[in-house]
Amino acid sequence: MDRQRELPGFDAARMVSELRELARLTGDERGAQRVCWTPPWEWARKWLRGKLEALPVKVEVDAAGNCWATLPGRRREIVVIGGHLDSVPDGGWLDGALGVVGGLEVLRGLCSGPPPELTVRLVDWADEEGVSFGEDSMGSRAACGTLDLGRLGGLRHRDGRPIEEVLAGYGLSIEKMASACDQLRATAAYLELHIEQGPILEGLGLPLGAVTGTVGVERHRVTFSGQAAHAGTTPMDRRHDSFAAAARFALEVRAAAAATGALATVGSCITLPGIATAVAAETVLTLDQRHAEAEPLALQLRQAHAAAEEIAATERVDVTWKRLWGIEPVGFDPRLIGLAEQAARAVAGDVHRLASGALHDAAEVQKAGVPSAMLFCQSLGGLSHSPREETTEEHLRLAVEALRATVDSVLRDPTPFLPAADRPPSLRAKSEDSRTRLVMLP
Amino acid sequence: MDRQRELPGFDAARMVSELRELARLTGDERGAQRVCWTPPWEWARKWLRGKLEALPVKVEVDAAGNCWATLPGRRREIVVIGGHLDSVPDGGWLDGALGVVGGLEVLRGLCSGPPPELTVRLVDWADEEGVSFGEDSMGSRAACGTLDLGRLGGLRHRDGRPIEEVLAGYGLSIEKMASACDQLRATAAYLELHIEQGPILEGLGLPLGAVTGTVGVERHRVTFSGQAAHAGTTPMDRRHDSFAAAARFALEVRAAAAATGALATVGSCITLPGIATAVAAETVLTLDQRHAEAEPLALQLRQAHAAAEEIAATERVDVTWKRLWGIEPVGFDPRLIGLAEQAARAVAGDVHRLASGALHDAAEVQKAGVPSAMLFCQSLGGLSHSPREETTEEHLRLAVEALRATVDSVLRDPTPFLPAADRPPSLRAKSEDSRTRLVMLP
Repeated sequence: MDRQRELPGFDAARMVSELRELARLTGDERGAQRVCWTPPWEWARKWLRGKLEALPVKVEVDAAGNCWATLPGRRREIVVIGGHLDSVPDGGWLDGALGVVGGLEVLRGLCSGPPPELTVRLVDWADEEGVSFGEDSMGSRAACGTLDLGRLGGLRHRDGRPIEEVLAGYGLSIEKMASACDQLRATAAYLELHIEQGPILEGLGLPLGAVTGTVGVERHRVTFSGQAAHAGTTPMDRRHDSFAAAARFALEVRAAAAATGALATVGSCITLPGIATAVAAETVLTLDQRHAEAEPLALQLRQAHAAAEEIAATERVDVTWKRLWGIEPVGFDPRLIGLAEQAARAVAGDVHRLASGALHDAAEVQKAGVPSAMLFCQSLGGLSHSPREETTEEHLRLAVEALRATVDSVLRDPTPFLPAADRPPSLRAKSEDSRTRLVMLP
Repeated sequence: MDRQRELPGFDAARMVSELRELARLTGDERGAQRVCWTPPWEWARKWLRGKLEALPVKVEVDAAGNCWATLPGRRREIVVIGGHLDSVPDGGWLDGALGVVGGLEVLRGLCSGPPPELTVRLVDWADEEGVSFGEDSMGSRAACGTLDLGRLGGLRHRDGRPIEEVLAGYGLSIEKMASACDQLRATAAYLELHIEQGPILEGLGLPLGAVTGTVGVERHRVTFSGQAAHAGTTPMDRRHDSFAAAARFALEVRAAAAATGALATVGSCITLPGIATAVAAETVLTLDQRHAEAEPLALQLRQAHAAAEEIAATERVDVTWKRLWGIEPVGFDPRLIGLAEQAARAVAGDVHRLASGALHDAAEVQKAGVPSAMLFCQSLGGLSHSPREETTEEHLRLAVEALRATVDSVLRDPTPFLPAADRPPSLRAKSEDSRTRLVMLP
């Protein structure tokens, strides 16, 4: 108990200082550079481990590379606070890191008091951004038992290294990754603080949001195939112009999304042969559609298919689709959403409920049957995945205070979340001794 | 005179065989590979030299790498028959080569008879396609004195070699290139046979066309700059979507061109960062506009500028333009157009007058003040710069017969083209002894 009294206790301002410290250590003038499985990410992990070593917590890295710090409570059931230190290249200083460094501060506060009612764990998920191998939320999906390990073999890091070599560098392997899903056993609730990455809270003039869930996503590659033709000799009415078809398609899906409150983005367009003097034989687009509800999302996709067919016919080109990725909408736990909302209102005076258009580890955890919720902190200008991502210091302080208050609410009255018996079979069926397979970072 | 009687005389069918021979020698299953300043182009040049060596003509390569064969006539004034052996990569077997091999056959026919009234020269222009250094019609522009030699220094071949090194490999240099413009002195008329590269003659069911000139071209790079934003968190009405602006622009310039009989092509579109999950911060298009007359071309460009401004304003993005290249419309010599038309009608029964949407060396020669005209041979499917470029053998035979008949018309009555005194100063002012600076290919 002497040690606990020596501990510094919760300090929202310190969290802001530590976030800046981390940014200086692992970023440059082009932004955060904590791409998973690279040296700047390792430096971030080492920095976090140094902070945790000052606390009475047990630190371990699981078979998927997720880093856990555990503060034992009166009961074995657990509240997990999550985030991710990894970033996109040239990313923002807060995306992911706010959750980890905020969680660290909440854990620090709990360490300075008596043992909490539930065990409290902080997790720094590995490879949330998915830029390394193209697998979003790899660490949390491994922990949830929803990562298809069979797909990982042969993948290469964006720097060219095979995944097997990259993982081996951290004492990990695809084969052993399955055992990471024991980490969420006995988890009663999962909470995550994140920067909004969008402009909604700023537009409302509110510092904080209680997140109701994550939207569903349909991501497709759409290829229009026409006929290359000389720009100077082919009359306009004789062309099979793949780019014109793609342009019409992009505008049509945009108009449909705007009309129905959905999101539709054509973020990439590639023309082949792609020269000034020839009609584009082939144009390849990406289409990313999102909606908070499943049926409107499916309708939006059907409408896009119909539009592509109609445009291809009138432009006399072919169109083909390839589904790149998709996810169902995920609704967070209503009781936890309510607690997060109350906590945010108590801290900031007002709060807004909103769905997250971006994906988060929290959605993976909720899908795996663990009651989950998130808090959002306002973004300035809604900029994300950019070195210009920003938030005011005042809002950062309010955000970590709201996270602390939400965790406190759960710890004060954990009954609604006990017993944690509604885990999916994938999380219940594992043997108890699998924790012995955990590996540790050097 | 003995030698002349041994010569084989004009044979349209042999020209077709020789074209096929050249295609086999310098192409592969992906098409013609005679990119200028590369080995397949050298093989083509060597092949041509072999054919010319059997004729009583003088062969020389000028300071710009153009290859000339001269059959002396009764007068020193000259009729030049032109073409180009160089091709784009994976190009068609006839584009350019038809002019040279057709001209070879006409020259062969003239060699077997008495000396022609005028001196007759065949020229194989160097680097018409401009794929090597990005300089279209480099050889003919050097010969016309309209090539800006100051721009050439530091250019690199598409294979990476500096232009100075490439030229030195053929005994050429940028400094000496200016002397190539002596080659067109005393030229009374210039004629060129080419494949149409478009579908107009095929659509009319006609084998041959008399070309009235080449269209004007405005080629620009148009950059729309918006704001990268997360595809999942940025409401549709908050976006600054550069790709949506570019799509609207491309469709608008297309509609304007179709309505006015002009051509407008957006052949290349590049999105940045170009990922599925972000609104494109920047979209870069190429716009290629063409029209046979200067004022409608200028109007089309002004309308495109206005459309870009209006679209950029409503999409809340910026737009900038960079002119990549442009050329005024060029009208060929009306007397020569008339002779070409008469010859084609006599050979094929009917003929169509049309402007060329593609550019040709003939336009450079005409611009330099030398009366010029072209004959077009029908393209199947209008395909060009493609291994699928094709023409029927019958039409190839008719085409070279029409070229021969046009040359004969000029030789029969050269008076309208004499004296060749209307050369521009650049062609008249050169010293007579500059021919001593001519270099020869090894």
